[in-house]
Amino acid sequence: MSQFLNYAINLAHMVQGQTGVNPPVGAVVVRDGRIVGLGAHLQHGDKHAEVQALEMAKDLAKDATIYVSLEPCTHFGTTPPCVNKIIEYGITKVVYAMKDTTLTSNCDEILTNAGIDVDYRFQEDAENLYKDFFTAKNEQLPEVTVKVSCSLDGKQATDSAQSKWITNKQVKQDVFNLRHRHDAVLTGRNTIEHDNPQYTTRIENGKNPIKVILSKSGTIDMGLDIFTDPQSKVWIYTENNKLCSQTSNVEVIVLDDCSLNNILSDLYQRGIGKLLVEAGPTVTSEFLQSSLVNELILYYAPKIIGGSGKYQFYQTDNVLELSDIPNFEIVNSELLEQNIKLELRKK
Amino acid sequence: MSQFLNYAINLAHMVQGQTGVNPPVGAVVVRDGRIVGLGAHLQHGDKHAEVQALEMAKDLAKDATIYVSLEPCTHFGTTPPCVNKIIEYGITKVVYAMKDTTLTSNCDEILTNAGIDVDYRFQEDAENLYKDFFTAKNEQLPEVTVKVSCSLDGKQATDSAQSKWITNKQVKQDVFNLRHRHDAVLTGRNTIEHDNPQYTTRIENGKNPIKVILSKSGTIDMGLDIFTDPQSKVWIYTENNKLCSQTSNVEVIVLDDCSLNNILSDLYQRGIGKLLVEAGPTVTSEFLQSSLVNELILYYAPKIIGGSGKYQFYQTDNVLELSDIPNFEIVNSELLEQNIKLELRKK
Repeated sequence: MSQFLNYAINLAHMVQGQTGVNPPVGAVVVRDGRIVGLGAHLQHGDKHAEVQALEMAKDLAKDATIYVSLEPCTHFGTTPPCVNKIIEYGITKVVYAMKDTTLTSNCDEILTNAGIDVDYRFQEDAENLYKDFFTAKNEQLPEVTVKVSCSLDGKQATDSAQSKWITNKQVKQDVFNLRHRHDAVLTGRNTIEHDNPQYTTRIENGKNPIKVILSKSGTIDMGLDIFTDPQSKVWIYTENNKLCSQTSNVEVIVLDDCSLNNILSDLYQRGIGKLLVEAGPTVTSEFLQSSLVNELILYYAPKIIGGSGKYQFYQTDNVLELSDIPNFEIVNSELLEQNIKLELRKK
Repeated sequence: MSQFLNYAINLAHMVQGQTGVNPPVGAVVVRDGRIVGLGAHLQHGDKHAEVQALEMAKDLAKDATIYVSLEPCTHFGTTPPCVNKIIEYGITKVVYAMKDTTLTSNCDEILTNAGIDVDYRFQEDAENLYKDFFTAKNEQLPEVTVKVSCSLDGKQATDSAQSKWITNKQVKQDVFNLRHRHDAVLTGRNTIEHDNPQYTTRIENGKNPIKVILSKSGTIDMGLDIFTDPQSKVWIYTENNKLCSQTSNVEVIVLDDCSLNNILSDLYQRGIGKLLVEAGPTVTSEFLQSSLVNELILYYAPKIIGGSGKYQFYQTDNVLELSDIPNFEIVNSELLEQNIKLELRKK
């Protein structure tokens, strides 16, 4: 365990959600017990974390150690390989917290051959940061987070569709942070027409996600607020090739088959690395039934709604055996005033 | 509250203990919801955090917001004023977490006159980071931390001077971190002669503090390990002008009066911003009786030593009324395996 390796991971966390289909990475250059350079990968296509940190360190990188949250890259992508830069600057030791399983050539070998001491030091928090990223990259699909706000009895609304506001102000604020950390928010046509939501990130200097709307039929009211705000970038997925957009901020994407897999695959091609699903029971259930969800975030208000459960967040046509239903692992639980937040992963 | 302001404060924490008589500062440049530059003040005399972050951001700093843990400087010191750089790069908003009470001209006014929106947003953790720094700077004396490892009954050793090891391995590790975060460690002649300690920072890439030894009489065995290690920088304060050093790593500093105040004042002139006192009862008690201590860190092992208490860590000649004895505030308590760490401040 090294504090400097932790700092590199901290830096990676700071830029999470702004690197698109690239991983968030942090780097710290240390010489004689002193940080001489700090860096993070700030945007897809921009310099890698190692390069930012080396450029800050300049000559002081000579004979220094570089700590990186992820194995340095060995390939020419949008930027030259980091291993070359590391060698060029005269670094004598590289410590990294997570293997990059997508590299085609061996980082350790290249660095070792250049006389550099390489230390892969597995860190669980780095693994948590990257494991979904690698799966996503391999499958060329975005990482998917499903968010649900509901009552203790699992309902997003009363039978008469009343839903404002079940959860509290702290949850709202937490959701703004969630949006900031995702490239896009996906929802269904029903939610848009019923709630007229803006899906904005009302935090200071927050990054608004791209809004993705699923409307297979293409029967959607284009006069809604979300379509008329010129600042709001909207993509509509539909199977209806007659649907078209009147404004430059709204793009209609027609697919022959609007399956989740096809949509996610298309989103990834468009640079969406992290997708947040904030939808009603239909779309939410479709995602939760699939194997495409990385994380489920549940906000419970301490209320019971009752009724017939028209808006239960999880509804399926098939009835599974109890031994076959999806199981989750609680990764984190947090009290947001009197509301409970659970972060879960499918087991 | 802004996460970006927190990130700036995080960056400041990362470089704490490596900026000497300068404050540890972090800065984050944000544009369109995205971090475009990160920086920290890495060393006394080096670029300020704002400049590091602006240089990383380059053209993207135009119309961006900069978050800084401390009010940007307005003066020509070892580097030009940060406010000029901020204006030059076209920043439109400056958010900072703590006022710099040592500035002679008004940062807010200069930035506001340049059409920049200024937002001083007080953050308690930034205040904790800087309040001692400003007192120290005003008084031109280092910030002083006194560290004591002892038994539950307040003894550093048995009456027969047995002291290895009262506290556990986790405490030892924590002390290495403490040393890394201070510019120098001060102790008395007795401790050096009795324990022959190295005062090193045995953490990976840890920064070894300068060793400061207090020996008024100057009767000290110059053959001890601490003097013979050429890597070890030692300063001896004495009133004995006949004491001299045979090696370049050991410097003898003769003062007419080796009062704590004179020693601390001299240390500050030599660039020591943060001093850790790790000493026996005599020196420890002298510091704790004075008004020169910012922080007291106590490590208790769950043991009782008894005896007459020859090595109680706090002993004084004067007996005070109960209403007049020093009072502390517990800032933090932590369990290190079976040892307890308390961080305290004088009330």
